[in-house]
Amino acid sequence: MARNSTKFRAVILAGGSGERFWPLSTPENPKQFLDVFGGKSLIRQSVARLKRLVAPEDVFIVTSAALAAKTRRELPELPRGNIVGEPMRRDTGAAVALSAGLCGDGVMGVFSSDQLVRDVKGFQKAVKAAVALAEREEKIVTLGIKPTGPSTAFGYVDPKKGRFVEKPDEKTARGYLRKGYLWNAGMFIGRVSTFRSAFAKFAPGLAPLCGAPKVSRLKAVYEPLPRISFDYAVMEALSREGGVGVVPGDFGWDDVGGYGAFDRYYPHDASGNVSDGKCAIVDAHGLICVSKGPRVAVMGVDDLVVVATKDAVLVAHKSRAGELKKLVSMVQ
Amino acid sequence: MARNSTKFRAVILAGGSGERFWPLSTPENPKQFLDVFGGKSLIRQSVARLKRLVAPEDVFIVTSAALAAKTRRELPELPRGNIVGEPMRRDTGAAVALSAGLCGDGVMGVFSSDQLVRDVKGFQKAVKAAVALAEREEKIVTLGIKPTGPSTAFGYVDPKKGRFVEKPDEKTARGYLRKGYLWNAGMFIGRVSTFRSAFAKFAPGLAPLCGAPKVSRLKAVYEPLPRISFDYAVMEALSREGGVGVVPGDFGWDDVGGYGAFDRYYPHDASGNVSDGKCAIVDAHGLICVSKGPRVAVMGVDDLVVVATKDAVLVAHKSRAGELKKLVSMVQ
Repeated sequence: MARNSTKFRAVILAGGSGERFWPLSTPENPKQFLDVFGGKSLIRQSVARLKRLVAPEDVFIVTSAALAAKTRRELPELPRGNIVGEPMRRDTGAAVALSAGLCGDGVMGVFSSDQLVRDVKGFQKAVKAAVALAEREEKIVTLGIKPTGPSTAFGYVDPKKGRFVEKPDEKTARGYLRKGYLWNAGMFIGRVSTFRSAFAKFAPGLAPLCGAPKVSRLKAVYEPLPRISFDYAVMEALSREGGVGVVPGDFGWDDVGGYGAFDRYYPHDASGNVSDGKCAIVDAHGLICVSKGPRVAVMGVDDLVVVATKDAVLVAHKSRAGELKKLVSMVQ
Repeated sequence: MARNSTKFRAVILAGGSGERFWPLSTPENPKQFLDVFGGKSLIRQSVARLKRLVAPEDVFIVTSAALAAKTRRELPELPRGNIVGEPMRRDTGAAVALSAGLCGDGVMGVFSSDQLVRDVKGFQKAVKAAVALAEREEKIVTLGIKPTGPSTAFGYVDPKKGRFVEKPDEKTARGYLRKGYLWNAGMFIGRVSTFRSAFAKFAPGLAPLCGAPKVSRLKAVYEPLPRISFDYAVMEALSREGGVGVVPGDFGWDDVGGYGAFDRYYPHDASGNVSDGKCAIVDAHGLICVSKGPRVAVMGVDDLVVVATKDAVLVAHKSRAGELKKLVSMVQ
């Protein structure tokens, strides 16, 4: 039985190390601040798509302490205190536990700050269905995304049994698709009390965060916390006990996981090149060329990602653009 | 008979449009100011290698008016008045005629500002031989460079007959090599009076410049001048009349004609990459990677020229690095 009066609050997780879009994204300007997809920053889009579901005063952002000020500047419509900086990185386990502490009671939803949704109405409909389900049943509900292919970049969820499985290899992923598994996109909705119980049972080390520690005490609380994702810490175990609900979603979700996204969201020229900013391209095909300042000239090359800021330049074969981590560690 | 008492003056032509090393070189910072080969700027090296041949007060620079101040800053040891800015570009014909005007009498040598010489002693020996020949005979003497291959980038000179031939196609170039032709490197030595007579006879339109017009009048004098190279205007015709002497030179001359020079003067890593500046290279081969500021990261690509300044970035296949003109015109 739905209790429509239950308060719904949303928490947007905004960590991010800024590697997959380096040098557009950096530790000081991670992916959620990129404004190259959809005109506004991804975090602004993430807040905007919750508009008819949650009032601004019920939207919380969990980010790093280092990014709290920048995040407040980006989202001036949110109360300053709703943007909380974690004193150190402790993965999503800690961030979701802190979210429960921030929300207090009612139903809470945890969302990402750096993903795209093409069909916002479809997204909102799915969230409403998840909230209704979470009100009816003491479950943590995940929005299961209809896969567009056998991705090995995401965990999957079996919508019939509510069972979580880890990121598969490609063969396994193909099997999951045949079985109708959905992508686990890291969007979780449930009663705050349900989250609290789940932490107490499966990740008691993180449970103190659910008690809404004062900001001044956060550092001391965080210091000893384990680095563990919410999926591993809670959802996988909970799903084995039947505590997970799944609301399927097919609303054009995209995790914007790397430069390939430019090929999906930008128009191509006659040679299959995509460009943004001051790019001159001669005798080249299949480029992704992005400049945030410098003039960029490319000639006689194919299938490259070329990205320039005033501080740094990336030149990589498209097939390698997913492996930026190693490269970024070398130049920073 | 050598007249050792004859005054020898040197003129270094320092025009340059800054295209072949774009974006390292630009119209405001053309090739002669590049300091990536040999540690000092090419123009400074060009002055330095004349050291035992000419006193600083007898070294003149003919550059553009726009570059005169920059050139004076680069070469503070030269008298300010020895650095003359042409009011407009009129090719080397005008520049050499102006040189004759600047030198007044004695023997003059015309040199380039943006070439490299590995064997400076060998160069000086050749210049001395050319000066001696110019004193003995009323000829314009060219330093004929021993070719390292059938280049199509240079004109050639037949050292036996003193005949100039234009830039050949490759097949013709191979023939020239078999015949013992040398490269015309644009270094000319002769009595000032010989230059004057040659201009009067073959390029009378340029002859007024030999009369040392005042700087204040240069613009009016230059305006109607034809755009023609000294080779075309004078040397080719003069060589047909037997007025050209040739002193062969084999002193490691290099016109540093483009990015390929990095492969000649920089050490290669185990993957055949050459780099200068903040370059991180992963799984790449045969790169020329140069940064004048930004951090540059390159991954999974071969045989590229990647060059970054704070203002501009070049990414080109090595085989295309000689065709920058088109590209540069698009981005400037």
